[in-house]
Amino acid sequence: MGFWKSLFSGSSVATSPTFIPVNGVGSPILPSENVQDSQVTQAKIFFSKDRELNLYELEELCDAVGWSRRPIRKVKKALQHSFIVVSMWEQRGSYHRLIGFSRATSDHTFNATIWDVVVHPDFQGQGLGKALMKQIIKELRRAEISNITLFADPHVVNFYRDLGFMPDPEGIKGMFWYPKFH
Amino acid sequence: MGFWKSLFSGSSVATSPTFIPVNGVGSPILPSENVQDSQVTQAKIFFSKDRELNLYELEELCDAVGWSRRPIRKVKKALQHSFIVVSMWEQRGSYHRLIGFSRATSDHTFNATIWDVVVHPDFQGQGLGKALMKQIIKELRRAEISNITLFADPHVVNFYRDLGFMPDPEGIKGMFWYPKFH
Repeated sequence: MGFWKSLFSGSSVATSPTFIPVNGVGSPILPSENVQDSQVTQAKIFFSKDRELNLYELEELCDAVGWSRRPIRKVKKALQHSFIVVSMWEQRGSYHRLIGFSRATSDHTFNATIWDVVVHPDFQGQGLGKALMKQIIKELRRAEISNITLFADPHVVNFYRDLGFMPDPEGIKGMFWYPKFH
Repeated sequence: MGFWKSLFSGSSVATSPTFIPVNGVGSPILPSENVQDSQVTQAKIFFSKDRELNLYELEELCDAVGWSRRPIRKVKKALQHSFIVVSMWEQRGSYHRLIGFSRATSDHTFNATIWDVVVHPDFQGQGLGKALMKQIIKELRRAEISNITLFADPHVVNFYRDLGFMPDPEGIKGMFWYPKFH
């Protein structure tokens, strides 16, 4: 987080700076012990492309992984102008909880760049990060985007590698403009 | 080009795969020896943000540096959905020639990624690539985009470094999804 805090504090976050890689394949969470009205409330996971999500709920999710806060109006604008937004939800009966998020910028044609991949700490280690990424890749492929890119923190490079992402193919370097230089 | 040709043939090109770095600061080209109607025709360089440029002229420019051809209708769509397009022109009297191009995808708020930076070989080595990059950075900064990124081929990493771009800051890796893996 140091780099991001020093450079882009409150303005931008790379792909999952505090995201802990998860293993295995995403699957519905098993029924809990909650019993309401004599019925077992079964939890399931679903994905949504709706970008009109509650931004305070998204802020709560990002807070949970320690990201720098960003102004709500800016987040709203960024979501409006993202090519795709994929959120991940836990559903228990009529109760929904935002547990994961990802988005991509794109020219709608050739290139896409995935940003802001996050899974709530309570739901890490269950393969849900992988499931979320597979979902956004599927959506980008469906839109016939061939060049899917991202910027990965060192501790998640292997997580993304397992999903089919190559670091620095043929020596191509991800570079970030640093305002203090100029 | 090998990587791009094998992976994304005809679909996508990284930042300036065949772009030769230029040195110095961009400046108007000196008057040529052309004399028309008893007047010296002075050549000057200008930039444009108009995205309605002649796509065949753009194709000619990309052909000149050996890029894989991309369908015109796709290029048109990509330009429409780019956040910004900056083209560079040589003007001699009433004659305009497209000599450079760059564009960026963005969420209009936090992040931008620069793609397809190209300068015609006849105009390389005069600082025009640097001038073109400074122009697109200026436009992105004017739009208050704080996180400006790109993917650079190995031979242009130093060119971009001189412009203030850092490769792999804090070990952040640029990664590309590779369809053959999955």
